[in-house]
Amino acid sequence: MNEDQLYAMRHSLAHITAAAVQRLWPGAKFGVGPVIEDGFYYDIDLGETKISEQQFNKIEKVMRRIIAEKQEFICSTCPINEAIDWAKETGQPYKEELLNDLKRAGTTRAADLDMSEMGTIASGNSAMDEVSFYTNGSFKDLCRGPHVANTKEVGAFKLMRIAGAYWRGNENNPQMQRLYGVAFATDEELDNYLERLEQAKQRDHRKLGKELDLYTMSPLVGAGLPLFTPRGTILRDLAAQYSNQLRQGFGFEKVWTPHITKKELYEASGHWAKFGGELFLVKSQETSDEMALKPMNCPHHTQIFASKPRSYRDMPVRFLETTTDYRDEKTGELGGLNRVRSLTQDDSHVFARPDQIEGEINSLLASARQLYGELGMELRVRLSYRDSSDRYIGEMKLWQSAQAQLKAAVEANGLYYYEQEGEAAFYGPKIDFMATDAIGREHQVATVQLDFVQPKRFGLGYNDADGQMQTPVMIHCALLGSIERFLSVVIEHTAGWFPFWLAPEQIRILTINDTILEYVDEITSIIAETVLMRPVKYNEIRYSVDVRNESLGKKIREAVSMKIPVQIIVGPKDREACTVSVRLRDGETVLALSDLSEYLRTL
Amino acid sequence: MNEDQLYAMRHSLAHITAAAVQRLWPGAKFGVGPVIEDGFYYDIDLGETKISEQQFNKIEKVMRRIIAEKQEFICSTCPINEAIDWAKETGQPYKEELLNDLKRAGTTRAADLDMSEMGTIASGNSAMDEVSFYTNGSFKDLCRGPHVANTKEVGAFKLMRIAGAYWRGNENNPQMQRLYGVAFATDEELDNYLERLEQAKQRDHRKLGKELDLYTMSPLVGAGLPLFTPRGTILRDLAAQYSNQLRQGFGFEKVWTPHITKKELYEASGHWAKFGGELFLVKSQETSDEMALKPMNCPHHTQIFASKPRSYRDMPVRFLETTTDYRDEKTGELGGLNRVRSLTQDDSHVFARPDQIEGEINSLLASARQLYGELGMELRVRLSYRDSSDRYIGEMKLWQSAQAQLKAAVEANGLYYYEQEGEAAFYGPKIDFMATDAIGREHQVATVQLDFVQPKRFGLGYNDADGQMQTPVMIHCALLGSIERFLSVVIEHTAGWFPFWLAPEQIRILTINDTILEYVDEITSIIAETVLMRPVKYNEIRYSVDVRNESLGKKIREAVSMKIPVQIIVGPKDREACTVSVRLRDGETVLALSDLSEYLRTL
Repeated sequence: MNEDQLYAMRHSLAHITAAAVQRLWPGAKFGVGPVIEDGFYYDIDLGETKISEQQFNKIEKVMRRIIAEKQEFICSTCPINEAIDWAKETGQPYKEELLNDLKRAGTTRAADLDMSEMGTIASGNSAMDEVSFYTNGSFKDLCRGPHVANTKEVGAFKLMRIAGAYWRGNENNPQMQRLYGVAFATDEELDNYLERLEQAKQRDHRKLGKELDLYTMSPLVGAGLPLFTPRGTILRDLAAQYSNQLRQGFGFEKVWTPHITKKELYEASGHWAKFGGELFLVKSQETSDEMALKPMNCPHHTQIFASKPRSYRDMPVRFLETTTDYRDEKTGELGGLNRVRSLTQDDSHVFARPDQIEGEINSLLASARQLYGELGMELRVRLSYRDSSDRYIGEMKLWQSAQAQLKAAVEANGLYYYEQEGEAAFYGPKIDFMATDAIGREHQVATVQLDFVQPKRFGLGYNDADGQMQTPVMIHCALLGSIERFLSVVIEHTAGWFPFWLAPEQIRILTINDTILEYVDEITSIIAETVLMRPVKYNEIRYSVDVRNESLGKKIREAVSMKIPVQIIVGPKDREACTVSVRLRDGETVLALSDLSEYLRTL
Repeated sequence: MNEDQLYAMRHSLAHITAAAVQRLWPGAKFGVGPVIEDGFYYDIDLGETKISEQQFNKIEKVMRRIIAEKQEFICSTCPINEAIDWAKETGQPYKEELLNDLKRAGTTRAADLDMSEMGTIASGNSAMDEVSFYTNGSFKDLCRGPHVANTKEVGAFKLMRIAGAYWRGNENNPQMQRLYGVAFATDEELDNYLERLEQAKQRDHRKLGKELDLYTMSPLVGAGLPLFTPRGTILRDLAAQYSNQLRQGFGFEKVWTPHITKKELYEASGHWAKFGGELFLVKSQETSDEMALKPMNCPHHTQIFASKPRSYRDMPVRFLETTTDYRDEKTGELGGLNRVRSLTQDDSHVFARPDQIEGEINSLLASARQLYGELGMELRVRLSYRDSSDRYIGEMKLWQSAQAQLKAAVEANGLYYYEQEGEAAFYGPKIDFMATDAIGREHQVATVQLDFVQPKRFGLGYNDADGQMQTPVMIHCALLGSIERFLSVVIEHTAGWFPFWLAPEQIRILTINDTILEYVDEITSIIAETVLMRPVKYNEIRYSVDVRNESLGKKIREAVSMKIPVQIIVGPKDREACTVSVRLRDGETVLALSDLSEYLRTL
């Protein structure tokens, strides 16, 4: 099945959906019905009548009848004025409007018009004096195709949801009903898709965030500004520690900078002119300072680099800071941890000599591989290079050398990669990391970005062996990206069953009765002395004891619902045998108490 | 020597200073000359003539002559109109202005006038129809006294500095010259004071901050917004870790909240009405949200407490967050780390049942004692209670019980304390901690503050054993206070010679020549595996190696100037004997290499 065939199937299903709606509600007026990712939709105006999800079954039944009827899709063309008459006669004012717009556009190619919402209706005839129709059974639609041969060939589908949508996306226009469907070539593919969707729903980090008590939102604090509970804060801290420890192993040093700055810093960096309108502005009531919340940390870090003279022997200088940046997103775009206004970055900046780029990239790639590998996520990288246009800043020689060093480092790390010319930022080439999660979704995570511009703008320099001032290259890198987004990915990737080292509550001891409390003390003192050293160093075990006078079944159910990775069940028999019964997600095992600490260290 | 006597001595020295200035510059016009902490000043108008510090010797010489003359201080009184005539005749326009103001004020008591700058001149006669003068030798001054009997009795003094000062503090008035002196009862006390002052200058954290490369300021970022270098960041992190580890031992859990909030949060807490004009306001360009940078964290933390139902069994709930607050100080008041606009607090909030107050305070006091004790600073606490007025919120019974619990906890911890009625905040009693540094200065550091109001305003509650909703008490506590201010105190207290566990660079290995590099590797591998466990757990040793081809003397000088607490000197003899020469600040010792790790752990 190639992409074009699947496109034709989905497109044909849009027509079949409209045809079914027309059979059920003969007065239906239609807008547009394009193909989208995984399926299609059709915009429909039924006047006062509202389609509900309960009616999907009824619509799907009619669709299946149309499919069973094996109706041929027949193409025809006619002059645009005839088409307008057809729209008038059949009572399709939206089609009439589109046709009139097309007519007005005259010989202009449809692609040049801002008519993206017209999707399927642009005629194949570039002169626009004729338009094409497709007819199946009694349903005729203005359409440029392509379609499958007949309605039998549309594969598997399912109507998914109905939502309001203004005609042509303009809120001054009438509101239509947008009926969404998904469609795949085979039932198996559709089932897989629906299964993944169901899994994604179960794994939704907003749902799990609440169930596992990881973070909360407060309307008093504001949208996109999550507050992290003790459990969620453990996740944040461990993720940041891991990311930091990896880089500290390569000589990165932590620094600290404030969250605000005078706008002069961003005027110097060039960000003010480019992003000034997207910043949270900060108003001092005591001074005349014009300030902003930092949306990134590089300009602040340049000021630490610039705070003393540097020699070529000091290079590279590597700064690391986990700090919160603020970006003024539209509140409509905010949801859960995926997109927030307070994003904490595990940010780092290397100030390097040009000949040191490859070595530094190597360390960063090794760190990223280890981090995502530990979480069982596969990494894929995109190398974004410059093209031959003149919109890039910095010498061509420097770019070419840097791009070659990036590629060499990616290859040395055995990472799957692809290269894209023209995708670099104007200030330097970069590497983007994509991680694949447990249900096959790809997420953009870390980036490594070279920067030839900021060091120049801030006048940074180091003395070379001859005492000449040279300009360093900056390498921006965040391994987690935004910790909030990273956690949203990890929560959904693991479905809340975090790996042992990361789980906010790693162990819960469940007592069978209260005759063994002294033995429980023995167990907890062993656990309290156990410190994990990998992947994060000095990771003390987090445990609790459930000694309530409740049934073991209830205690286990609660521990499972909180997704505690290790449940230790203790009863009188365990005490007598000096053992512990360890219940993991995938089975149970009995250990000698003396082996517990070592066992936990290898989990 | 009691305070009154010392006051009279300093006050008399102010007159003697003015008398000496009058002898040297007969046209001098005088403002006021009050006693201040450690001494006195006098405001003088010499027209175009400017006194420089080079002339202090000359002035002091005349002062000593006046002292040697053993002039009596003679008190006299006269009607206010005669005094005005005297001021006119002697060409003292400032005195004349003060007298006219006094006259206008009529029978009103001087204390009721906003004439604090008039300091010493208010007459003892409350009816203000007569004023008093003191005369010594040929110098006569409007003055209420008291003075010593004669100029011989003034003790030891020294002129310190000269600064511009607007007459009566108003910048529209003429600028006078303010001549400052310090004075003590004995030469020894003065010497001690000057010695302490010199030490304080040597210890100035702004000077050491630069020399030891701890932090930097950038005019592009703004005043009061320090940026911490790698060395300074180590200090910050270790201080915060220590403070957190102490409280985590008592069940505190870390949380995380954003640095901004909608103003609705502070409207609910009541802070908006009270402090709205002192906040950094944050303007969203994408939404209509009215926001602010948080100046404290309690309102944010209430939202986490409120995020789920709580039972009396869950109490107390203890949140801990090291986070940066922003306060919009006037830039003129900013200097070094002492007063910043970005202040990072090791903040914590306990939500407790009223009967749990004492236990919680106990834990916090024990933590504070350990922390400041570790730094060799003595703690003194002030207990601030309510008085019987009605400006306090919360039931009297709750206040009395809480105050008794505070006192019991302070006594149980054996802390030196004093009590002050009427010093509590309107929302609850509190404990302030004062720490004394190595040169005898006292600094306000931690606070523990009870709060009966915010839990009510936010409608916080927990279910008691009967299922009734009860309101918790909040206990605010920061052990370090602001980390920036804490570091300024620690830097000056230690003069930059940080205790071993805290030093940014703990060990520097200095090689005698390059024949022993392999032996150096042996040493560093031992150091790299040594992890300190107290006072901060998991504190990996920070070391460097100076293998430069420089003389040992130069290497030592540089290590000493960076105040590296442990310098290990390695030469061929050490390698042969398998020893290391350890150079501490207070002496040198030779160790077997095999004892090095244990030695470092006990430093």
